[in-house]
Amino acid sequence: MSTKKNILDYETVRLDDEKNALVIINQTKLPYEIEILSLTEQKDIWTAIYLLQVRGAPAIGVAAAIGIYLAALEISKKTDNKDEFCKEFVKAKEYLASARPTAVNLFWALDRMENVAKENVDKSIDEIVKLLHDEAIKIHDEDIWVCKQIGEYALTLVKPGDGLLTHCNAGQLATVKYGTATAPMYLGHERGYNFRIFADETRPLLQGARLTSFELHESGMDVTLICDNMSAMVMKNGWVNAVFVGCDRVAANGDAANKIGTSVVATVAKRYNVPVYICAPTSTIDMNTPTGAEIKIEERKPEEVTEMWYKERMAPVGVKVFNPAFDVTDNDLIAGIVTEFGIATAPYDKSLPEIFEKKRKYMEGK
Amino acid sequence: MSTKKNILDYETVRLDDEKNALVIINQTKLPYEIEILSLTEQKDIWTAIYLLQVRGAPAIGVAAAIGIYLAALEISKKTDNKDEFCKEFVKAKEYLASARPTAVNLFWALDRMENVAKENVDKSIDEIVKLLHDEAIKIHDEDIWVCKQIGEYALTLVKPGDGLLTHCNAGQLATVKYGTATAPMYLGHERGYNFRIFADETRPLLQGARLTSFELHESGMDVTLICDNMSAMVMKNGWVNAVFVGCDRVAANGDAANKIGTSVVATVAKRYNVPVYICAPTSTIDMNTPTGAEIKIEERKPEEVTEMWYKERMAPVGVKVFNPAFDVTDNDLIAGIVTEFGIATAPYDKSLPEIFEKKRKYMEGK
Repeated sequence: MSTKKNILDYETVRLDDEKNALVIINQTKLPYEIEILSLTEQKDIWTAIYLLQVRGAPAIGVAAAIGIYLAALEISKKTDNKDEFCKEFVKAKEYLASARPTAVNLFWALDRMENVAKENVDKSIDEIVKLLHDEAIKIHDEDIWVCKQIGEYALTLVKPGDGLLTHCNAGQLATVKYGTATAPMYLGHERGYNFRIFADETRPLLQGARLTSFELHESGMDVTLICDNMSAMVMKNGWVNAVFVGCDRVAANGDAANKIGTSVVATVAKRYNVPVYICAPTSTIDMNTPTGAEIKIEERKPEEVTEMWYKERMAPVGVKVFNPAFDVTDNDLIAGIVTEFGIATAPYDKSLPEIFEKKRKYMEGK
Repeated sequence: MSTKKNILDYETVRLDDEKNALVIINQTKLPYEIEILSLTEQKDIWTAIYLLQVRGAPAIGVAAAIGIYLAALEISKKTDNKDEFCKEFVKAKEYLASARPTAVNLFWALDRMENVAKENVDKSIDEIVKLLHDEAIKIHDEDIWVCKQIGEYALTLVKPGDGLLTHCNAGQLATVKYGTATAPMYLGHERGYNFRIFADETRPLLQGARLTSFELHESGMDVTLICDNMSAMVMKNGWVNAVFVGCDRVAANGDAANKIGTSVVATVAKRYNVPVYICAPTSTIDMNTPTGAEIKIEERKPEEVTEMWYKERMAPVGVKVFNPAFDVTDNDLIAGIVTEFGIATAPYDKSLPEIFEKKRKYMEGK
């Protein structure tokens, strides 16, 4: 498929109801090729999650929801027996869950789908399948809504012509549409804001180079790729007005775990008086984690640092490597946490509960 | 040649008087292979400098000095005519100078050698060649002395068991022996200091991964390779007691230009109260440059960032790239500038002239 297609013409993850297929952009082919996969077999959906053809916590959740709906649909064609249906449904759920055992959103989405089946177990198989379909669509649509809301709030923090810097990929490619950290960029772009965007390449896996600079460039934005160690230079030059990054988990005190290097960017930004905003769906804010010190940081294999993507070494055999996947950015380095229900600022022990109160009221009103 | 040989068994650059050859470690083969090149032809010496088979400002200077001596020796075998000798000598000098037109040390060494020839133009060709030989050896030996002095002074700033972090390669491989930023590491290692060393990989050209982690690992030190964006994490963990880096130019106010990313490391170090020391031979301190703002920063080609060493792209075709080779670390981030004549600390407008006064006295006493 040609790379001339615009990334924004696609959703990263969606359900094709005509073909009963999970449709994804194959992220392992980026930035070389935009390959659209239309997956109908459970083993192919499992493989897509396993091989990171679909990646990013929100996108994985949506893919799993659609995947388990398609499994239920398939099972319903093979049996009229409710017990048999339920047994096969649980098997299918466990199968999909095994694709990435550390992906919290995968379990969250599958559990949410299973709850729909459980709560409606007295209904007919066809009715259950229909409800699963609707729930998958709901999860898909909610993701778009959350990103768009974050984008709208974030957009109030900047002005046309601003320089924005981001780290890693909290982009459209990690969600269904808009992304989190990139949501203000996409919305601003639609409204002619003419941002000048800087994308950290984000070693060791280069999500910034391979994904963020790709999707923003494809969408026609003015994006400049830099190495992670160039942030001080672009900020000293006065080119950056705000930093927007995603996050993996926010603690109750506002400390934010995100891709390794985020705290370096935030420390440098502080020196140059550039505000750092964490774009965080409320689902990533964990009020049961008191501070960032309680967040366990995954260490990944040394080869990510010492070998290239094409298996050429760039460091001596046997050298020790420290390769943490994430770091924690202390709350004093964070100017605000942008959620789908507004922007929390310090003191976070006061502002984050207020965000959840807004969420509670919104959910009640629905 | 086997990679099992110890890097410390070699000097990076030396003269082989038996074979009349410039002997270098071929740095383009590292870290895969330790290949020793024994170069006798001027075109091969030119190529070695051009292709960065020998790199690092001090090492290039020494290579050029040895190279122009070998050229003079060769010319002396072909002519008894002094004018002819002088003409050919100047030609040879210009030829070597053209190998890397931006390498200041290359010109500095060649000019110093030419001055020896000029000052002794009344002597016989054989005597001139002998004096050129001695000057090349002197430049070579001085480089070792400068690095060792820097190492001794730097060693007073740390204690056994300390964690040390360095960026890029200001190592033995950039000098004849010891390096500048690595000099305290080598000297401490010889004395059983058991440092724990962290080497930034240093994007985009990965000198830290390919060279620094290589030479320290080969020498038997405890070195851990990290990506540039992991510095905050290792410092927050309390693993780093001091940062030692080299420099390309120090301004009169103590601002220091060094490999891109140095100012990021220094900013992060400041947050975690880790002192940053610039290891700078007095030859890199330019009292005619008032501040870092007057130092022009070279921008290099985008492909260094977007393509791997094996010509595989890792970013979209057409994306903009900002690829500065150096950055300036402001003097407020620097705990001390370690020279071969002692350690300068703030205020640098007072301490740097004192260093040069010590140098003047030392040179007088010689």
